[in-house]
Amino acid sequence: MVKQQRAARTRQALIEAAAAVFAEEGFAAASLSTISRQAGVSNGALHFHFASKNALADAVEAQACERLARITATAPARPGPLLQRVIDATHTLMEALTADVVLRGAFALACEPARPRDGSPHLHWQHWLEGTLHRAERTGALARGIRAADTARTLVAATVGFAVLGADDPAWLGRPHMTALWNALLPGLAARQELPRLRSTGPHPPAPAPPHSRPQP
Amino acid sequence: MVKQQRAARTRQALIEAAAAVFAEEGFAAASLSTISRQAGVSNGALHFHFASKNALADAVEAQACERLARITATAPARPGPLLQRVIDATHTLMEALTADVVLRGAFALACEPARPRDGSPHLHWQHWLEGTLHRAERTGALARGIRAADTARTLVAATVGFAVLGADDPAWLGRPHMTALWNALLPGLAARQELPRLRSTGPHPPAPAPPHSRPQP
Repeated sequence: MVKQQRAARTRQALIEAAAAVFAEEGFAAASLSTISRQAGVSNGALHFHFASKNALADAVEAQACERLARITATAPARPGPLLQRVIDATHTLMEALTADVVLRGAFALACEPARPRDGSPHLHWQHWLEGTLHRAERTGALARGIRAADTARTLVAATVGFAVLGADDPAWLGRPHMTALWNALLPGLAARQELPRLRSTGPHPPAPAPPHSRPQP
Repeated sequence: MVKQQRAARTRQALIEAAAAVFAEEGFAAASLSTISRQAGVSNGALHFHFASKNALADAVEAQACERLARITATAPARPGPLLQRVIDATHTLMEALTADVVLRGAFALACEPARPRDGSPHLHWQHWLEGTLHRAERTGALARGIRAADTARTLVAATVGFAVLGADDPAWLGRPHMTALWNALLPGLAARQELPRLRSTGPHPPAPAPPHSRPQP
C-alpha cells in the first residue's frame, strides 16, 4: 500500500515536472533527464512510469483535461444566467493557467506542431463553450443574429491568444484583460434584457482555486 | 552583379524554407540540413549566409515584420473610418497568414519559449493597433467607456489565437471567423454613429495580396 502511494506520488511529480519543462522550454527541446531531475527521481524511475516523452506529454494533457473539466463542471452549478457561467469560466481558466503548471504545460503542448491535437484541452474547452452557448441561444440569451458556434470560436481564439501571450507575460492572464474583452463583447453578444444581469468582471468573490492547482513557482 | 543576385536569391530561398520548416516542425525540432535541402542549396551555402539557426529565425522575423508593416501601412491610405482600417487590417493579416509562409513561420516562432520576443511581429501588430485605436478614441469613434489600449489587447489576443489555431486548421484563418468576431465586437466597441459606416466583413473587394506573398505550397 505504501509502495503504491509512493508510485502514485512519483508519477504525479513526473507529470508536474514535465508540464513545467514543456511550458518553459517547449516539447522538442525538453530533455527527459531535466524532467527526472526536476521531479527529484532517477531516469530509471521516469522510464518505469513513462515509455517516452510523448507518453509524458499525453499524461500532462489528460490531467489538464480533467482539471479543465472541473472548471467547466462547476460552472453549471452556479445560479444565474448561462452567459454569466461562460464569463466566469473564462476568468477561472485564466486564473488556473496562472496557478496550475499542468494546465499551462498542456496549453503549451497544444501549440507544438509535432503533437497530435485530439488530446488537447483546446478541444474540451471549445465543446463546452459550444454546448453552453447553444443552450443560451435556445433560451433567447444571445442577441439577434449572433450564433452560438461563431461565439464559441471567437472565445476559443481569444482565450488561446491570452494563454500564448501569458506564457511570456503573466499580465495577459490577469482579470483586467479578460474583463475588457467581455466589456467589448457583451453589448453585441447578449440579448438586451440579459445585459443588466451580466458582470464582465467574472466570479465575485473569485472562484475557489480548482483542486490540485498550486501557486506558480 | 549576377553573383550578387544569385546570393540574394539563395538567401531568400533559405529564409522561406526556414519559415516553412519552423511553421511545420517548430524551431527546436527544425534541422539546418532539412532547411538547406528544402531551399535547394548546400549546407555550406546555408552557413555562408547564416551563422546559426537563431540567425535564420531572426531573418524570418525581420522579414515578417516588414511584410506586416506593409499591411498596416496600406491601411491608413484607405478612405473611411479609422475602425474600418482596423477591421480591414485584421482580415488582411489572416489572408496573409494563409498565403505567406514567412509570416506564418514568424508567428510560429513567437510561440517558441526559446526565442526572444523583441523581434516578434506580435509587438509590431500591437503597437499599430494601439496607435490607430488611440486616434479612433480621440476622434470619438469608440463607444463611451471603451479604451484604446484594452481594445488593442483584445484584438492582439484574438488574432494570435486565430493564428495558433490556424496553424493546424486553416479554416480558423478564414474570413467568416474574423467577421463573426467583429459582428460580436462592434456594437460594444464602436460609437453609435459609427456603426452604420462599418463593415465587419473587411475589405471589399479583398485587399490585394501584400507584395511577396505566395500561394500556400
